[in-house]
Amino acid sequence: METYQDLSRLVSPRSIALVGASDRSGSIGARALENLMDHSDFKGDVYLVNATKPEVAGRKAWPDVASLPSVPDTALVAVPAEHVLAVLEQCGEKGVRFAIILTSGFGEAGEEGKAAEQTMKEIVARTGMRIYGPNCPGLTNITERLGFTFSPSFRHDLRGGPVGLATQGGGLGRNVLQAMDRGIGVALWSSSGNEVDLQVSDFIHYMADAPDIKVIATLLEGVNDGRKFVAAVQHAARKGKPVVVLKVGRSEYGRKAAQSHTASITGSAEVNSAVFAQLGVVEVDDIDELIDTAWLFARGMPRQGGALAIYSGSGGTAALCADMVGNAGLKLAEFAPETLAVLRDALPSYAAIDNPIDTTTAVMAKPELARTCLQAVCNDPSVSLVLLPQALEYGDITKLAADITADVQKESPVPMLPIWMSERQGGAYKVFADAGLAPVRSISKAVKAVERWMGYADWRARADIDFKPLMQTAARPVADVPTRALSEPEGKAMLRAAGIAIPVSRVAATLAQARLLAREVGYPLVAKVVSEQIQHKSDVGGVVVGIHDDAGLEAAWESIHTSVKRNMPDARIDGILLEHMAAPGGLEILIGVSRDPVFGHILTFGLGGIYVEVFKDVSRRMLPLSATEAEAMIREVRCFPLLDGARGKPRRDIAALTALLVKVSDFVVAHGDHLVEMDLNPVWVGVAGEGALPLDAVIVMEQGEGGK
Amino acid sequence: METYQDLSRLVSPRSIALVGASDRSGSIGARALENLMDHSDFKGDVYLVNATKPEVAGRKAWPDVASLPSVPDTALVAVPAEHVLAVLEQCGEKGVRFAIILTSGFGEAGEEGKAAEQTMKEIVARTGMRIYGPNCPGLTNITERLGFTFSPSFRHDLRGGPVGLATQGGGLGRNVLQAMDRGIGVALWSSSGNEVDLQVSDFIHYMADAPDIKVIATLLEGVNDGRKFVAAVQHAARKGKPVVVLKVGRSEYGRKAAQSHTASITGSAEVNSAVFAQLGVVEVDDIDELIDTAWLFARGMPRQGGALAIYSGSGGTAALCADMVGNAGLKLAEFAPETLAVLRDALPSYAAIDNPIDTTTAVMAKPELARTCLQAVCNDPSVSLVLLPQALEYGDITKLAADITADVQKESPVPMLPIWMSERQGGAYKVFADAGLAPVRSISKAVKAVERWMGYADWRARADIDFKPLMQTAARPVADVPTRALSEPEGKAMLRAAGIAIPVSRVAATLAQARLLAREVGYPLVAKVVSEQIQHKSDVGGVVVGIHDDAGLEAAWESIHTSVKRNMPDARIDGILLEHMAAPGGLEILIGVSRDPVFGHILTFGLGGIYVEVFKDVSRRMLPLSATEAEAMIREVRCFPLLDGARGKPRRDIAALTALLVKVSDFVVAHGDHLVEMDLNPVWVGVAGEGALPLDAVIVMEQGEGGK
Repeated sequence: METYQDLSRLVSPRSIALVGASDRSGSIGARALENLMDHSDFKGDVYLVNATKPEVAGRKAWPDVASLPSVPDTALVAVPAEHVLAVLEQCGEKGVRFAIILTSGFGEAGEEGKAAEQTMKEIVARTGMRIYGPNCPGLTNITERLGFTFSPSFRHDLRGGPVGLATQGGGLGRNVLQAMDRGIGVALWSSSGNEVDLQVSDFIHYMADAPDIKVIATLLEGVNDGRKFVAAVQHAARKGKPVVVLKVGRSEYGRKAAQSHTASITGSAEVNSAVFAQLGVVEVDDIDELIDTAWLFARGMPRQGGALAIYSGSGGTAALCADMVGNAGLKLAEFAPETLAVLRDALPSYAAIDNPIDTTTAVMAKPELARTCLQAVCNDPSVSLVLLPQALEYGDITKLAADITADVQKESPVPMLPIWMSERQGGAYKVFADAGLAPVRSISKAVKAVERWMGYADWRARADIDFKPLMQTAARPVADVPTRALSEPEGKAMLRAAGIAIPVSRVAATLAQARLLAREVGYPLVAKVVSEQIQHKSDVGGVVVGIHDDAGLEAAWESIHTSVKRNMPDARIDGILLEHMAAPGGLEILIGVSRDPVFGHILTFGLGGIYVEVFKDVSRRMLPLSATEAEAMIREVRCFPLLDGARGKPRRDIAALTALLVKVSDFVVAHGDHLVEMDLNPVWVGVAGEGALPLDAVIVMEQGEGGK
Repeated sequence: METYQDLSRLVSPRSIALVGASDRSGSIGARALENLMDHSDFKGDVYLVNATKPEVAGRKAWPDVASLPSVPDTALVAVPAEHVLAVLEQCGEKGVRFAIILTSGFGEAGEEGKAAEQTMKEIVARTGMRIYGPNCPGLTNITERLGFTFSPSFRHDLRGGPVGLATQGGGLGRNVLQAMDRGIGVALWSSSGNEVDLQVSDFIHYMADAPDIKVIATLLEGVNDGRKFVAAVQHAARKGKPVVVLKVGRSEYGRKAAQSHTASITGSAEVNSAVFAQLGVVEVDDIDELIDTAWLFARGMPRQGGALAIYSGSGGTAALCADMVGNAGLKLAEFAPETLAVLRDALPSYAAIDNPIDTTTAVMAKPELARTCLQAVCNDPSVSLVLLPQALEYGDITKLAADITADVQKESPVPMLPIWMSERQGGAYKVFADAGLAPVRSISKAVKAVERWMGYADWRARADIDFKPLMQTAARPVADVPTRALSEPEGKAMLRAAGIAIPVSRVAATLAQARLLAREVGYPLVAKVVSEQIQHKSDVGGVVVGIHDDAGLEAAWESIHTSVKRNMPDARIDGILLEHMAAPGGLEILIGVSRDPVFGHILTFGLGGIYVEVFKDVSRRMLPLSATEAEAMIREVRCFPLLDGARGKPRRDIAALTALLVKVSDFVVAHGDHLVEMDLNPVWVGVAGEGALPLDAVIVMEQGEGGK
């Protein structure tokens, strides 16, 4: 379990020192000063520090931090890069608890900057002072209206609300704040820049505890410390607060650009997404989707099995929206008879009262009908959200409809989500925005947000919130340690010792011994070359299958020796592995374990060959696996029907496969510290009752005690 | 080939009669009159017709169409529903060429309305007058500023431009027009309502010829006449004009809603999409995507193999955009050395000059640098479009940048696409909109539009623009004719007669005969029951495979008779089919032909079993198939690597498979008029040189001459 420091005195300090306070117009020091003194509601003590002037902007200034009359909770550092380290040393010595470094020109600028960041880390370790930044736009506490930032936008983006926003860079974070104009509200924005010390994870953790925050939106270029991230999002889950994430670096172009931008480790997109899904972190694809989705959570929590209503005044619009709802696999509510009765009564005969509702233009003439209809829909027991696609701006007519919607929303706990499809924005849009209904700008984006919102309810229903991921070796770079691939017999012996069923096998050194051992193994059998130098046995003719008798065995013996000698004359043959052959007709799956530098050991499950390679049809989990989670990952692959007995074929032994996944997970837990990679491929899966047997096993260990 | 009537005198009539002209404020007749007289630039003769008043709005009115002093090109009909048929009769008799019926209350309102529409069709057939509507908002010719519509919005949405918009319903069409506020321009909007006569296809065809139109955007709830639609979009393709389509009814909810809204046949979503792709019709998923994509074509045509540039002032934004470009499979340009030199010179050392470009905030201080950089990027030979993701509204700073962009665009043929990601819209947004740069509102939507734009260039490069689809039986409902499934030997005999290789087979009536015929067929063989009553032979134990000798044959004979008698005691066994068994190790694929009510015969290709059922991994084409197109559809399935020799497996006989697809197509052409369905499943595909053999064949014919 990670320990997190309480950040209250950073977010809401009792006293603050602005180091590098300036009255030179446009300078970072002057802008930070202006935000603090003129645009913030800061009620604590402010100390200005300026190395050369005794007075700044009409206020006393101290020459350095050391000479301050008392110890501020937080230092806001706006001095040029070359003075930053000296200021931090003084702050640390003085006992300052937090330093926010606005200055840039460090890790992102080159080697010298990276060295300076190393020194910052040392100051943190030595003094206990926590550092926020450098190369960041600052910290914005909107709930208390405190701007520790040089941004001239601070004063414009102050609509408070229940979203906690944790980003690394500034530009995209500010974009979220500008969405305040359509009704979203933010409690706190942290933008931790180069993250020499405090990271996004620290703020996710803080926000999980903050009473003014209901949902956490985060934007990651990279996760620098997987362990901290996992602990933080699990803390949020325990507190019932969804975390919505936009992760940059999911394609090669994006990875390259993000790395050059922040020097973050972007990590494997597949692993990141799998970990997010496992931990209930709601992943989105674009910044507007981050806003839409987070705001939906801020407005209300989803209910598992809930259904949607669509309410529109245009038949085509209603149909288009219903279309997308269906394509997303979401459910339209079947209205209760009472709801239908109200709608039938209120609307003309040519209106559609079945979901989706097309009121036709009738409600334009009698707006109060809209109120009656909307209330009935919101009160319907099966409706958990109402989509209001609005194709057109029609001045006062649409404004009135928006007024009614906002009114009805005040009385209803069911969120109504207006979809403002028109480019034209008039009074109605403003009504929606002012009421915090944050219109989404296209049907497809709205449906995506709702899909994610609903998906969270499904996750919560099945999640093990107290799951403790292994992550033994997270953040230990694989490249740094020498590794060794175990031979197949060695690897299988380890698996067998761990209680994993493996086909009976023996290693024979001579043909005579092979004949004897074949009796123990039992025909039919498979013969495979054993050699430390040979990784891909089939490629060198080192495998013969379907050996049914002694004659076949002799032929195989001969064939393997001849082929291997021809293909790899230098390889030393340590023997021939004789293995009982699994019954034909088994289904072949694969189980892989790899060590992610951010999140530690990840288990991958999939059907062998083409399914994995062409369709990328696999499921992944951080370890350890519970039986529930193991079965979930089996059921998650699209080709699960193959295992489940599709097309009249027999159902496979899913119980045995589940048990095998759990045993593999236990094996990794036991050896994880040294296990680099593991590949059971293929694993033979028989029909129900026949079991699941790894037929080949590649295990790569770090060299050392665990791996010899 | 469909014949299309010239619609010039509908779109731009020399004279018009407004039937039902009124001065009762708010009535359809009054609103149509106002649009025509006060807001249109109509220079021809206008005749007002009112049954009761000799004067309307200060102008002379005639009592009926019959009494008009001359024959107007077009009648605009705004009388109540119960008078419409009488008015149309008079118009037809008078020799009016076109009638636009604004009135609603017909097909969409019930049986009586449907009957009235039938009468309208008869008037069209009898008089040659063409009908537009009913139940439509009218026709809007923006190029000439002519509004034959009752819409009070007409006067507000008059930004001309090269988009032709053809819709059925009105609401979503008007939504496209409101996008004029972000810079799009429209030449003509047709909204053909219930389409008793003129359809969307008629307008696509007209727009293909219209000199003021460069790209056609269309919104379909259903395609009522596949043949007309295909001819129209092919005409557009020949004229070099892309057609962009949003088709409603792609999920069950959407189909249901669209049908109740317009009574259109929504058709199979999969077939629609396949036909669109085959004909180069660019399909989109949402109305905003329709606008974005169409406008991109209006601004410039894509170049095959072109690449993108990303230009931004925020590193995080540039990285996010690059990420999505990569995920979409689009290419970022590698800048020429000259481009890089200009950028290096203009931008600070910490800027990113490699694509994506992050200028950093440096250009804010020196805006002229932005001009230099943008010009260099537009001039780079590999750049065919520049994405300008803009995360923030910063007042004058962003406005100035937009001014420069608009300036540079004037000189450059390479489209620059601003992505306005902020909710806040200031001067910059207006500059982009006014300059016709139509900012897209999110990165993901912009990337989608560009993906589709680029995809069109790929289509044009490979398309057979003069492809003549078969569509013999399109629009002939299958349900109306009695059908018959041919027996397997009968079906195979037909295939063999058509030159399709089939395994050697004979039908035996007795076991003795079977022994003799087995010599002709050759062991190993397969035995299958022949019975008109049995469709699914395997399910009743009617198939035995792997028969190697006479003993096996006897056992099979016995087994089939016993099983079938037990499972289907009433089925008459007409014999046993003995078929030479294909060599083991072949790959199994399926070829299906179905008859779509809209587009006629559609051929489906896919790998058998799970690939089709779970992954929906198939390709589809309208027939007939050329060899090029046949090979394209083989290569198009995701699991093509399986055929192409993935994972060290042998490459399959793709040439034979291609030839088989073409022969199946020829077979359908020969029998198409009566062929209802055809299912070759499995088709055995050997390794290169071994051929491709249908192992089973189900052919369903209409009963009649072709199918006996």
